[in-house]
Amino acid sequence: MSLLYATPIMHRALPVTASDGFFQRIAVIGLGLIGGSWGLALKEHGFPGVRVGYDQPEVLRRAFASGAVDEAEEDWRRAVKGAGLVILAMPVGPTLNLIGELNGFLAPGALVTDTGSTKTEICSRAQQRIHGDMLFIGGHPLAGKERSGIDNAEAALFEGAVYVLTPPGLETLQDARGQAFSALIASVGAKAWVMDAAAHDHALAYLSHLPQLLSTALASLITDKQREEALPIELAASGFRDATRLAESPYSVWRDICATNAGNIRESLDALINQLERIKQHLADPLLEQDFEEALRLREKLREIK
Amino acid sequence: MSLLYATPIMHRALPVTASDGFFQRIAVIGLGLIGGSWGLALKEHGFPGVRVGYDQPEVLRRAFASGAVDEAEEDWRRAVKGAGLVILAMPVGPTLNLIGELNGFLAPGALVTDTGSTKTEICSRAQQRIHGDMLFIGGHPLAGKERSGIDNAEAALFEGAVYVLTPPGLETLQDARGQAFSALIASVGAKAWVMDAAAHDHALAYLSHLPQLLSTALASLITDKQREEALPIELAASGFRDATRLAESPYSVWRDICATNAGNIRESLDALINQLERIKQHLADPLLEQDFEEALRLREKLREIK
Repeated sequence: MSLLYATPIMHRALPVTASDGFFQRIAVIGLGLIGGSWGLALKEHGFPGVRVGYDQPEVLRRAFASGAVDEAEEDWRRAVKGAGLVILAMPVGPTLNLIGELNGFLAPGALVTDTGSTKTEICSRAQQRIHGDMLFIGGHPLAGKERSGIDNAEAALFEGAVYVLTPPGLETLQDARGQAFSALIASVGAKAWVMDAAAHDHALAYLSHLPQLLSTALASLITDKQREEALPIELAASGFRDATRLAESPYSVWRDICATNAGNIRESLDALINQLERIKQHLADPLLEQDFEEALRLREKLREIK
Repeated sequence: MSLLYATPIMHRALPVTASDGFFQRIAVIGLGLIGGSWGLALKEHGFPGVRVGYDQPEVLRRAFASGAVDEAEEDWRRAVKGAGLVILAMPVGPTLNLIGELNGFLAPGALVTDTGSTKTEICSRAQQRIHGDMLFIGGHPLAGKERSGIDNAEAALFEGAVYVLTPPGLETLQDARGQAFSALIASVGAKAWVMDAAAHDHALAYLSHLPQLLSTALASLITDKQREEALPIELAASGFRDATRLAESPYSVWRDICATNAGNIRESLDALINQLERIKQHLADPLLEQDFEEALRLREKLREIK
């Protein structure tokens, strides 16, 4: 695995050039938490062009009312028409489907990006299906909240967040469109990080998908215990609430993530199960201390980062 | 297990009688987060008697300076002398040790309580070692923070928290001392819950000790991965931070908890490992949805509680 992380396109902060006026029309396809926040953030930071949004009618109505979009389209084909930048802001499954149909409706030279939580399948399908002079650069803003939907969108969502980019090759970031998109990311306060899609999916299995499944496993175990033996959940303190906060994330999002990153997730689950077995064997001896020390070290590093 | 939770002394809110003036002198042995907060909370809520504290000299100095105690004693024997209520506010190990030595130094008729995170061993030793007309009622305020120590103590720590009591028998709560202690707990804003010690330890294995070890296991696994394959922890988002927050708890506290509740903790680890194995088998099929739904149900129940 070390090679994967040693590729030169990793961990590089992008140079940001002033290209704010490059895109005159941006289409946001899907106006949930991420798409809605893109719309609001573009407005907040003075994007001078037109923001057109696509979603279900009721979501569109709320997005328009909140100022997240300038124009609302009930047909994604009309929404992407003439857009220099198309942001696909949907769960992984719908993103994969739409990538398959998009090419014929895009403006010449359009840049397409997505916000999906796994990147290998999406980038691989985009390479096959988005061609001609169109360009696809995978994206993943690490800026979720437990609560999703347009009503939780906010202009500051990306402020200080890492925004992973998985371009098909480094040269695409030198392209004027890649530069302009990087500048937009910087303008909404996020930090662009360039990785290859496989490295992203491996890292996120450990740092996002594993914690999610742990939280889900713990919360569903406690539901079982409460039902089977009346475990008094009134005794759950703040630590338990922290540990199960992620369990509120919707299955509809995680179904696609688990299905498109199953290999990495299985590996991370096995690694954690091994760790738990080890702890179980050493509950009453000093080897447990090593785990506590290593865990504390990680928290210190996280504090150094931000 | 269901019998354990069905015992009549469980889940009963205590009747609170106005007995604030009952104890004239309260000794707090150990002035960390919990002991210091007891001292500050007693003052805040107008306790009219004397609060005497024992700890290491430097901790005593800071506790006295912050107003957590009225008197500071460097010898626990002098601290407990004449105290009607003795609160042992130390980790489980030192609590067990002190319970073995306490009896000869207590005031006649003193009530002794503790704040330890496991109750079976402590209550069992107290039954053997604290006798005569002295009374021991086990206690466990469910009000931790990641940061321990006198500097993090606060008068409001117990506000709204559940405060578990594990008396040797229900009749001891009818005793004037039991009533007075219950009143003190209510006066600092906590909710007294009466359980037997074994039921407490079983429930807390699932609701506190398991989440702690999960958080430690996840954080130490990521430290390993960062070292071995340069896993980029900069990609950790807020969900990961929530899931590993508990990993900052000190080993010194958890060593004793794990050693004195190993059987229950092993059972809970096995149950969680089973849950993770199940999830691993169903990453790409709809059975995963059941776990997400059960997990969400728990979070909804937690919101109903407070």
